[in-house]
Amino acid sequence: MRIKFFTTGGTIDKIYFDAKSEFEVGPPQVLEVINEANITFEYEIESILRKDSLDMTDADRELIRQRVQAEPCPRVVITHGTDTMVKTARALGGIAGKSIVLTGSMQPARFRTTDAVFNIGAAIGAVQTVASGVYIVMNGRVFDPSRTRKNPE
Amino acid sequence: MRIKFFTTGGTIDKIYFDAKSEFEVGPPQVLEVINEANITFEYEIESILRKDSLDMTDADRELIRQRVQAEPCPRVVITHGTDTMVKTARALGGIAGKSIVLTGSMQPARFRTTDAVFNIGAAIGAVQTVASGVYIVMNGRVFDPSRTRKNPE
Amino acid sequence: MRIKFFTTGGTIDKIYFDAKSEFEVGPPQVLEVINEANITFEYEIESILRKDSLDMTDADRELIRQRVQAEPCPRVVITHGTDTMVKTARALGGIAGKSIVLTGSMQPARFRTTDAVFNIGAAIGAVQTVASGVYIVMNGRVFDPSRTRKNPE
Amino acid sequence: MRIKFFTTGGTIDKIYFDAKSEFEVGPPQVLEVINEANITFEYEIESILRKDSLDMTDADRELIRQRVQAEPCPRVVITHGTDTMVKTARALGGIAGKSIVLTGSMQPARFRTTDAVFNIGAAIGAVQTVASGVYIVMNGRVFDPSRTRKNPE
Repeated sequence: MRIKFFTTGGTIDKIYFDAKSEFEVGPPQVLEVINEANITFEYEIESILRKDSLDMTDADRELIRQRVQAEPCPRVVITHGTDTMVKTARALGGIAGKSIVLTGSMQPARFRTTDAVFNIGAAIGAVQTVASGVYIVMNGRVFDPSRTRKNPE
Repeated sequence: MRIKFFTTGGTIDKIYFDAKSEFEVGPPQVLEVINEANITFEYEIESILRKDSLDMTDADRELIRQRVQAEPCPRVVITHGTDTMVKTARALGGIAGKSIVLTGSMQPARFRTTDAVFNIGAAIGAVQTVASGVYIVMNGRVFDPSRTRKNPE
Repeated sequence: MRIKFFTTGGTIDKIYFDAKSEFEVGPPQVLEVINEANITFEYEIESILRKDSLDMTDADRELIRQRVQAEPCPRVVITHGTDTMVKTARALGGIAGKSIVLTGSMQPARFRTTDAVFNIGAAIGAVQTVASGVYIVMNGRVFDPSRTRKNPE
Repeated sequence: MRIKFFTTGGTIDKIYFDAKSEFEVGPPQVLEVINEANITFEYEIESILRKDSLDMTDADRELIRQRVQAEPCPRVVITHGTDTMVKTARALGGIAGKSIVLTGSMQPARFRTTDAVFNIGAAIGAVQTVASGVYIVMNGRVFDPSRTRKNPE
């Protein structure tokens, strides 16, 4: 079993640069999460963007769509900022023959208390069992993005 | 969406009693994991046993089977020790109309480095997307227990 | 034995607000650190400022000095941003009859990997054993601020 | 500034072996703690024993005493089980010209919630500021072992 991960930035990948006293989108955290989880499937991780999802443009979404469409692996997990995850999920509609799951986190993966590890686990559990299509996995739920909005609370 | 969790003990629930300088099976850790994950589904957690899975008897497995069978919720996640998880999964075969996922961890949930959070996430992602039947979720994979053995490495 | 903690902000207290996708100085983290450490001394925590230390003004330093001077407890620990910790320490020079220790962290206390817990521990270990005066505790060392500069590397 | 660490086992170094479903005293955790704390002093770590402190014999304490006495570094931190830490501290009485601090933890260093990092920090803060002699650092306090007993609560 093989999973392809695409990373695009978002809260999940935020790190802290002390030299600048600022948080920025850092390297993809999904690698650390799956390393610690002692996973036994094959995988590949590819970074497409490093953006807050509020800063994503239509061109960014088109780029993500092209990469996903060109990807031969039938199981795709995309880590993404939560603010516009639904919008990106909808932009991926109609790609045939692939199970595509978007996930992210409300607290950065590097935080001691974070939903990132749980969410990536849930996305991996879902991507190998759902039918083809696009899904969002957040808060322990597998959503259909055509019926989802972000609830800021 | 609603999930019923049954807990039976195992490594995932091991805690440390300093007064006795010993590790023992403690209260179910799944509650802390889902609290931190900010989950939005409904759930119930029920502790059936607090045992190392090597100590589980046929009577214990019969008890687990009865509880699962009597449970009205169609989505069941069971946390369990890894050593005999496959045996218990097989003892649950043939229960109709339910998606049943067993999971656990190699390192206790209370450890700083643990696979417990990831595994519970993966189990929750899988239990709401798989067809009826019994499954094991470990190491990021959704297994059919009729073809699984524990690999001690 | 009693310790008075003053908090002023800095990296150690940075938290993440998902609603705004921004890091900000949050509530003092020293309380969580000493709670988890199972400490048995008496203490009081007082928040004076919530600032990045680069934003601290001379008026802020005068305020800190007044509070420390007015404090009856002879053992004072101040959590502070690292960038201007030396400057604030020097501004506290000449307060008689008190052991004053400034500490902070390079990574926020809420991060999974952080120097905050260790540094607060070291500050507490030092403040009850040093002679009266002002000290900086960072990187496991007890410094005399009159001979210290921040090394950004 | 240089510190010599001796490790003897105890709760602080307990790890979990899944293959045996047992906790055992593992390799010294002090190295991981100081690595993460980004310390800038020089140090050496030497493992003398790997024992629960309840299992320590008079011969073990004699061995620890010999090693500490032979050690040229004037700052010594010893990690030790909490149950008989006071007894070992007393067995180190009368060694001249050295600041000796014993510490340990109630929860293993590998736990997510542990007092180990804080205690090692406190021990390091104390060892470079106390007068020569033997001290215990636990619960955020620097104790004189001649007047200390373990309180199991």
